[in-house]
Amino acid sequence: MDYLQVTFRLDALPSEAPDLIEAVLLEQTVETPADVARRDTFVREQMMGLVQEIKALGGSSVRATLAIPILTAGIDPAQFLNVLFGNVSLHTHVALESFEIPPTLESFFPGPRFGIGGLRDRLGVRDRPLTCSALKPVGLSTARLSELCRSFARGGIDVIKDDHYLANQPFSPFDERVRACQDIVEDVSAETGRRVIYCPNLSGTPDDVLRQLEFAQAQGVGAVMLAPAIMGLPFVYQLVHAHLDVPLLAHPSFSGSNRIPTEVLLGRIFRLFGADAVIFANYGGRFGYTPEECGRIATELRAPWSEIAASWPVPAGGMTVERAGELIDFFGIDTMLLVGGNLLLAGDDLLDRTREFTAAVAEAAAHRPLGTP
Amino acid sequence: MDYLQVTFRLDALPSEAPDLIEAVLLEQTVETPADVARRDTFVREQMMGLVQEIKALGGSSVRATLAIPILTAGIDPAQFLNVLFGNVSLHTHVALESFEIPPTLESFFPGPRFGIGGLRDRLGVRDRPLTCSALKPVGLSTARLSELCRSFARGGIDVIKDDHYLANQPFSPFDERVRACQDIVEDVSAETGRRVIYCPNLSGTPDDVLRQLEFAQAQGVGAVMLAPAIMGLPFVYQLVHAHLDVPLLAHPSFSGSNRIPTEVLLGRIFRLFGADAVIFANYGGRFGYTPEECGRIATELRAPWSEIAASWPVPAGGMTVERAGELIDFFGIDTMLLVGGNLLLAGDDLLDRTREFTAAVAEAAAHRPLGTP
Repeated sequence: MDYLQVTFRLDALPSEAPDLIEAVLLEQTVETPADVARRDTFVREQMMGLVQEIKALGGSSVRATLAIPILTAGIDPAQFLNVLFGNVSLHTHVALESFEIPPTLESFFPGPRFGIGGLRDRLGVRDRPLTCSALKPVGLSTARLSELCRSFARGGIDVIKDDHYLANQPFSPFDERVRACQDIVEDVSAETGRRVIYCPNLSGTPDDVLRQLEFAQAQGVGAVMLAPAIMGLPFVYQLVHAHLDVPLLAHPSFSGSNRIPTEVLLGRIFRLFGADAVIFANYGGRFGYTPEECGRIATELRAPWSEIAASWPVPAGGMTVERAGELIDFFGIDTMLLVGGNLLLAGDDLLDRTREFTAAVAEAAAHRPLGTP
Repeated sequence: MDYLQVTFRLDALPSEAPDLIEAVLLEQTVETPADVARRDTFVREQMMGLVQEIKALGGSSVRATLAIPILTAGIDPAQFLNVLFGNVSLHTHVALESFEIPPTLESFFPGPRFGIGGLRDRLGVRDRPLTCSALKPVGLSTARLSELCRSFARGGIDVIKDDHYLANQPFSPFDERVRACQDIVEDVSAETGRRVIYCPNLSGTPDDVLRQLEFAQAQGVGAVMLAPAIMGLPFVYQLVHAHLDVPLLAHPSFSGSNRIPTEVLLGRIFRLFGADAVIFANYGGRFGYTPEECGRIATELRAPWSEIAASWPVPAGGMTVERAGELIDFFGIDTMLLVGGNLLLAGDDLLDRTREFTAAVAEAAAHRPLGTP
């Protein structure tokens, strides 16, 4: 039988652990008293799963791995999340630690369609990290955002994304902005012979997002961004499998949860659902993440995982041009460096500052080995 | 100007609080350095919001209320969540405490379409709590689930819902199950003259869910259930506003987050997005919630809130028939009592046990005042 293997960390004394783990297994499989579940032969034999391993970690911490039949988890993307960390997310003493999918689920979850290799192909960039910046702040007119876009494009940025607060506001309607920014990156590409991707932010209901996506793809955009934790992962799944022709950049907004580790939610789940590049709050920026946490996110995004393509780590959140070398040393060249506000501080010197950024990346990358550290 | 008012609890010393709060305000409004944001007149005057109040709570705990312009929050349901607790959810020292929407946002967020009053109307039940049970465990055939459904209906349950693990599995395909269970509740209603609602679980991608909903509504179901934290709140918004003709029951799966209090996410946000009834893990069951927490969820769901309809609290998660009286004392009669596994334990005596449950509710309610405690 095929199982989804899920590892939880439990806040429990070793003596309490076996009962608690059996309760978690029931919760995540049949969610009825065991006596009820066992009455039906099919349920008893096929649905109840098993405890694979229990390990005391010292103190009141226990790690447990459950094998959960994929008859529910593999039926649709919402059920996958239900089984992975649905009801059990309500137990404050149970945290998701990691999971493994069986080979039979891989056709259901093919992961990123472009990932690291596919986006390199589209940009024609092999030997350095990618660079990224953001059109912001929200409230600027399309004309002002377009000026920023032109400076970023001329300055050598690879991926120019909308800020995640840009939606379909009257001061910069979605269609107007996408048309303007896509025209600009195409103009600059024609001038320079260098490909530049404009990546609009998709926002609203699924119907809104589908309409925005259709418009954006018809305009020829090279990628799109959305926030999976806001939009819902089942919708991301549908987009990736039925609607998206271009790479998907995942934004971490609303993803803060203390009980799914960041590297599992952003590094593993977002990748599995098809994000080609995943933005995360990097260490030493506006957020309190440690280098170790950020390293784990990047590792998860790029780790060999059967046939599932590697996804781009996009460290962000208060990065500076001056840190390009350090970040490349830390993350390696299969990394997309996202610098936003720090470039925008240059004001009228935005183009020069952007060139400094892209030159710093090229320079720092020149002597680094290809691939992942 | 119209503001969304958001209150955060910060883990910070009073001396550090002002800087931290300014940083949170920037993050949740313009997400650029303040110097960059202030360069544009419109951004400076319309987009930057303000700190309304800072209150030291003792120790290293501070409460801060921000006024955030609705020019982003009010543009679509995804931006609402972005502004409410998007990027700032990544700060482990910042927790969402509560929020208030301005009157101008109320047409955008009308809340539940049925709520407590509308569902009472549909069922013709005025003077007692509603009763609810669940078809489970997953793995049973449609024939077996139908038998359970018939016993629940004959036993007097008001709302018979699918377990949240029931999807479109081969052992009980969605359409087959919905047709069978809806036929049963209609048969029993015809026999007894008492209305019974069958409430199927919607699961999958938004496209899957829309197809399931169309089928279920065509069959005449009286309500539907889904898990907003899995499906994504913007999709819930779309469903409520464009597709749903029947009441919506919200399931709490995947909603466990340590930094949005349960009463805010389930009690306030789910209600605002249109859930007519919200299931939560009750105290004294399988989950570790306290009576105080559960009381706060129920309070939020039913509190007067401008023109927004009250939503049903649905305490669940290991409830027993024997607790009916206690739960009615605690939650009052504007409550839907959900007992699942405890009824199913009765096995062949399911019908009698269900009658015990519904009789206990009627009895306990007989001497209680109408309305909310």
